This record gives sequence, C-alpha cells and structure tokens, in this order.
Amino acid sequence: MADVGSALADVVGAEHVLSGEEISADYGGDEALGVAPQPPAFVVRPETTEQVAGVLRVAGEHGLAVTPRGSGTGLSGGAVPVPGGLVLSLERMNRVLEIDTANHVAVVQAGVTLGELDRLTAEAGLIYPVFPGESSASIGGTVSTNAGGMHAVKYGVTRHQVLGLEAVLAGGEVIRTGGRYVKTSTGYDLTQLIVGSEGTLAVVTEATLRLRPRAAHQASVLAPFSSLREVTAAVPKLVGSGLDPLILEYVDMLAMAAITANADVDLGVPEQVRQTTQAYLIVTLENRSAERLEADIEALGGLLTELGAADVYVLESNAARELITAREKAFWAAKSAGADAIVDAVIPRADLADFFEAVGGIGERRGTLIVGCGHAGDGNVHLSVFQPDPEKLTAVLREIFTEAMGRGGAISGEHGIGREKRPYFLDLEDPVKLRLMRQIKQVFDPQGILNPGVLFD
Amino acid sequence: MADVGSALADVVGAEHVLSGEEISADYGGDEALGVAPQPPAFVVRPETTEQVAGVLRVAGEHGLAVTPRGSGTGLSGGAVPVPGGLVLSLERMNRVLEIDTANHVAVVQAGVTLGELDRLTAEAGLIYPVFPGESSASIGGTVSTNAGGMHAVKYGVTRHQVLGLEAVLAGGEVIRTGGRYVKTSTGYDLTQLIVGSEGTLAVVTEATLRLRPRAAHQASVLAPFSSLREVTAAVPKLVGSGLDPLILEYVDMLAMAAITANADVDLGVPEQVRQTTQAYLIVTLENRSAERLEADIEALGGLLTELGAADVYVLESNAARELITAREKAFWAAKSAGADAIVDAVIPRADLADFFEAVGGIGERRGTLIVGCGHAGDGNVHLSVFQPDPEKLTAVLREIFTEAMGRGGAISGEHGIGREKRPYFLDLEDPVKLRLMRQIKQVFDPQGILNPGVLFD
Repeated sequence: MADVGSALADVVGAEHVLSGEEISADYGGDEALGVAPQPPAFVVRPETTEQVAGVLRVAGEHGLAVTPRGSGTGLSGGAVPVPGGLVLSLERMNRVLEIDTANHVAVVQAGVTLGELDRLTAEAGLIYPVFPGESSASIGGTVSTNAGGMHAVKYGVTRHQVLGLEAVLAGGEVIRTGGRYVKTSTGYDLTQLIVGSEGTLAVVTEATLRLRPRAAHQASVLAPFSSLREVTAAVPKLVGSGLDPLILEYVDMLAMAAITANADVDLGVPEQVRQTTQAYLIVTLENRSAERLEADIEALGGLLTELGAADVYVLESNAARELITAREKAFWAAKSAGADAIVDAVIPRADLADFFEAVGGIGERRGTLIVGCGHAGDGNVHLSVFQPDPEKLTAVLREIFTEAMGRGGAISGEHGIGREKRPYFLDLEDPVKLRLMRQIKQVFDPQGILNPGVLFD
Repeated sequence: MADVGSALADVVGAEHVLSGEEISADYGGDEALGVAPQPPAFVVRPETTEQVAGVLRVAGEHGLAVTPRGSGTGLSGGAVPVPGGLVLSLERMNRVLEIDTANHVAVVQAGVTLGELDRLTAEAGLIYPVFPGESSASIGGTVSTNAGGMHAVKYGVTRHQVLGLEAVLAGGEVIRTGGRYVKTSTGYDLTQLIVGSEGTLAVVTEATLRLRPRAAHQASVLAPFSSLREVTAAVPKLVGSGLDPLILEYVDMLAMAAITANADVDLGVPEQVRQTTQAYLIVTLENRSAERLEADIEALGGLLTELGAADVYVLESNAARELITAREKAFWAAKSAGADAIVDAVIPRADLADFFEAVGGIGERRGTLIVGCGHAGDGNVHLSVFQPDPEKLTAVLREIFTEAMGRGGAISGEHGIGREKRPYFLDLEDPVKLRLMRQIKQVFDPQGILNPGVLFD
C-alpha cells in the first residue's frame, strides 16, 4: 500500500493524498440513511484533469476501486467507498471557468457548488435552473445523479441543461463531449450516457451547462385541498393553463406539519381550514414583469378555486422563501423526526392519488408510518418511511417500488440508485436492460474500478 | 434467398414482403443529395412490435443487413439500404396510441408522422414542439436522427421531448425505456442513448413524447441587418430579453432571394433596404394572450432597432406563415437551384459571423458558391454548397467541418451522419470516442445487422 501511496503522491503531491487517521469521517459516506459509512484506504485530491487521469492510471495498475466524490450530499450512498479503495475528491477542482453570456453557457469544473454558480450567474442576469434543495451540492455530483429539484416542472432536470462534458475514462483517457450548443446529431450521445451514471462510467471533471434568462419576479401561493385526488386532478390544468409554473409541489398534511414546525414558519392558514386539509399545493410563478406576474397570480388564484382549493393564500415573499426552503429541507425534517428510509420514486403524475392510496395501504398492512411530499408536476414523490425493523423496512420499500414500477414509474426520480437502492434496482429492473447496462459499463471500465458497488454488485 | 423470403412471409404475411420488381424506387433511399439509392433485396412491412422482433430474428439467422425506415425524408442517407439487405419499413405502425392529457404525453408508434401528431395534439390544446420542416417525417425517423428544427431555441430538440421508447434489439428482444415522467435517475439512460443513434442500436417501435400547452397566438417580425456580425451580436440579447422567441432564424441575402423566389412571397421590404441588407433575422414570438403578444412584439421591435436592424417588419400572419414554410423548404429551394451538398453543421452561436467569414474564405479559395441560412439561436447552420466536382466538393466539405469542429462545434446539428457524412465523422471525430461508440454498437448489435454503413464502416 505504501507503493500506491507514493505513486498517488507523485501525481497530486503528497499533501493531497490522505490515508489512515488523516482521513476525516466525512470522506466515508454521504447523506444516505441506509448505507453505513466506510473509510477508504486513501483520499486523493487532484487539482487538474491531468492529475485525475494520473490517479486513475495508478488505480488501474493496482486494481484499486475509485469512488469519485463531489460534496458528499448524495442520498443513495453513491459516494460511499469500498474498503481498501480510494476516494477521488474533486473539491479542489472548483473553478468556474467561464460564464459565457454570448452563448448563455457556463463552463465549470466538477467541484463547483450550485450555490457558487448561482451567485455568479445572477451577476450576469442568468440562471442555472437546477435547484435540488442543497446549494452545497457539486456540479459533478448533480451531473452524476441527474439531479432534479423543484424547478424541473418548468426547466427539466440536470440532463436537460448539460450540453457537454470533459470526463476521464477508467484507463486515464480524457474525452470531451458535446459543446456550447443545444443541437447535435453526431453519433451516440456520450454526454447523456454519462449524465446519471453515478460515477460508474467515467470521472466528470468539467461541464458545459445551459443557462437561461433570470426572471426578475417570483410569487407563490399556497392552496389547501381536502383530498389528494383533487390535487392530482388540478395539476394538468395548472400546467396546461400556460401559466408555466416554476414550482408545483405537493405536501401532505403530516409532512407540512413537520416541515413548518421544523422551520418555524407561520403560513397564516386558519385552524379550521387546516382541519379539513389533506394536502397542500404550493405553486410559484415567475415573470420578467411585475405587472404580468400580478395578473398571473390572480388568474392562478381563480383557477385554483375553480379546481377545488379550500382557499388560496398568496404568500409574502419571506414566508414563501421560508416555506420553499423548508420544503427543500424536508429530508432533514424527516431525518430528525427519525425516518428510517427516504424514498424518491417517480410515477406518471396522473397516478399520484392512486399511488398514495396504494402506499397508504402498504403502510397500514405493514404497520409502518409513511409520510409524503413531492413534485406534483413531475410525479416525483418523496416518502419518509418510519420502520426501524430492517427486514420489515426492506419489505415495505420493495412493495413501494413495485407499486411505482407497476404504474410505469421508476425507483428513483432524482436521488439515484447508489448502493442503497441497488438491491431493488437489480431485483425489479428488466434483466435485458440490466444486461445492456452491465455491458456498457464493461465498455467504459473493463477492469471495474469505477465506483464498484454502485448500481451493480 | 427464397428461404429468407418465406421466413419473412411467415412473420408478417406474404403480402408485406416485397422483393425484386415489387420494390418501388422510394425504398432505395432518402433525400440525401450525396448518396446513391440502392434497392434492397426485401422490403418488409410489419404491423406489430412482435412482427418487428420476428423480422430481426430472421435477419439475424441469415446474417441479413436491416435498414429501418420511417418516411424516408432523412437528409444523410441513413435510410439507404445495403445491397442484398432488407428495408424494415415502419409505415404500417402508424397509430397514435394515446394523447394523454393528464400527463401531457403522447404515446405513438414509430410510423406516425409529425403532421398527424400535430393535428391530434392541436385538438387537445397541446403541441409536440418539434418542427424540422417536414411534416411527413415519421416519429421513428425524427427520434433516430434527433431532429431539431426552428422551435429548438425555445423547446429544445427531439431528445428533450422523448420520455420513453419501446425498441427491439438486434436479437429480437423488446425493451421499454423511460415512461410518462420527466425525471429519472435509475441507471444508464437507454432512451437517450437510442435517440440519435440512426437505427444502428435498435429499431424504435413506439415513443412516449412530452407535450406542451399550445399557445394561442403567434406573430413574426423580419429584421434586415447590414452585416451578419450585427445579427450574431443581437442573438444573445434577444434570447436574454426574456421574450422567449419561438423562432430565431438567420437567412443570408442570397438564400432569402432563393427562398422567396421559390415560394413567391412578397415581404414588403423596399428595394433600397434590400440593397444594403446582408442578412435577415426572422423572429417569431408566441403567447397565450393576444394582448401580451402585441406588447412583446412592440418591445421586440424596439430591441431590434437598438441592436442595429435597418428596419423592422411585422409580418401579416399569411406572409409570416409563407416565409417560415418557405424557409423550412429551403432544402428544396437549394436542391432545385442545383446545390451539390447541403451541410448542417453546428457551432457555438456566438461564432456565427466568424464561422461564415471563414466559410466565405473557403468558398473563395476553392471557387465554390456557398449560400447559408440557419438557426441563429442555436448556432445550427445550413449551407448549400454548389460544386459539381466530387473531389473538390469533398475537400470543401472537409474544410467546413474542420472549421466547425475547430470552433467547438460538430458535423451535424440535426440531419445526422448517415452514410453521407460518415467519412468526415470517422476522420475528424476523436478516435477514443469513436472506439467507445463502436463498442456500444457491439453491445447492442453484436452481429452488426442494424443499419450497417451508417455512422460506421
């Protein structure tokens, strides 16, 4: 192992190779609830793409597992290393190389955080519209999991913003894919193949990202409904209205209580309305003109009332920001409430009410509390599952995923498979597709050194 | 061969297996200018996915090349078969299975045309926003080439609308990818890998497509500029304005003359303005409100004037429709004018003026007339190249593509590589990426029966 350490030090400098006691606990994992942290043999912190390539060559020579790591904010154990393996941390590759205002593109290194990119794009009147709710997340990490978030109903997910990548293959070769353009029909789209591959195909070192004009004005409304079925029926009408919602979130009554208690937000909903409310819809609109926004909010209020909302509360911008931040942090609320698993399945959005009914049945049958919120516009649901018994928990999750897939959905909308959902993925996904994926993995990484244990066994 | 014919007849019925004289000339090719048609040994017209699988199994057993075919409107020779091979025509798989207004999704068979889908989505107040300019194009074909068109500046290209696919692998296995949702992070994105693969990885039989609300009102303006450099400088300002253009097209003065002459459109631009005009910008806006559209068109006019337009003509809706239709048919204008090649390169849009200057230099040096128009918002340029000498033509095209790639662009933005651009693609693309693509091809199609000669040798 001393050999490996010195070979790595030759590549990145001794001060950027950590081992043993030097490795802080953080490097052992991410935010997944169900995957135990695992300290690696080495943490390596390259500063350049050439150094990443050098590290991968050393790893290849020694047959060492490599776990690429951004900020460690993932929720599926995709950044948990292998015993004896190395963590390739991209934290020093944190430069925004260009905010290109002529092409409306940002070129950034993988270690740049969403927060930093948001600050710089704001200065240019532009926005990178992916807000998964954790501004310390790195671009590399969000590319690897195809992160989504609340704005996906309007702007799509990470995949839709990534125009090009620089990535290092397992053998140390560097490729550049795509570029500063939206259109291309030039062979297989390697950019899109690498996005969402959770560090198993290549190490992303740089991304070329599409930026949009930043709308000057935002406003939010909160609408309590007496049933989730009404919420589900309202969603296509809201999207189809042309009001083009930026955010369309559903929060059930228990999740709302947890979220607001945790964040100490007062939404001004009277007690008697709260008592008959089963589900809340949060809708945010944006516009470059304050006047148009005001007219749209008024139209939205009318539409929500028509669609059965018990009332419509236009939130003061502070309250709206707090509620949305609190909703983004729902994971932490659920964690602090003692949730044993947090599930991020996706289903066709029209199935939301039926799906939740089925999930309620699973919870009742299995004696398990399941609380939900989610991206109503996308059919992406976040369920907090409270079931301390690991065996029972596995059975509940398996039923939930089976239900989602049975409705034409998928196991994860935005968190990824990682290590945590791997058993369900391998168990429930079509074996023909799994075979193709394994063979693609083999093409990119014949030795299997890139993030072993993630996606596949 | 009689054996093969009867095996195919067993799968699809004898009346849907054509051979010899029964095969009309159409089945021998597509609209590519530079690829000679080639009659296949058989044309097979399956009606179901199971039949497609059966045909592929027969082809596999007999080692027969299979060229999937939609409407044959491609521009790169992607539907030109191999001598002795079979054309798998999806013309009978032309059913719109569902316009799902709750999920805003269309589920269609591969042989459905864009025109038919547009008609049905219009009835539901929705739109499939891919308009590559040929409404007889099939969904399968547009998925295979990742077709773009004029609306890409607002809605993105085919890739961004395809949520899921049903596809048949070379061995006859049927897979279903994705679904009626925008978000997924569940292993490698096979949907996106198959989109744009030009029939070389699998035969697409069905697509699940994202639909958008259809805006009720559209208006277009025409702005003459005295230089392309001004046009290029105007584009980011127009996109950044938040006016969210649906169309942002650039047409040079020669191309405009050809387009309008061909379509007999009178745009009302006075002779003296025409004389100082080097380039026209066509901008279309859409809105659900006629009032807002009017205000936006006014703002657009002011902005264009600020940005140096010699004048701004708001086009009557008839004139606008005619101009845009004529622009969409620019390929036919160029073809009837005797163009020897039509090139569809993509570059970062800020490089448009420099790129055209370089292309002008190539034309001058090589004694070749090159006329251009293109999607200014996307950096996707369409060049008509007039050079009857095949050797000189090849040299000119090679220089054009090299110039595009040198600027971080790509050989094709939306037409695809097909057979026509294959030599340039194989010559100019990074060999490491080509190796990955060949190996991916090998994973999907180990026998190499799917569209051989397209993309690769």
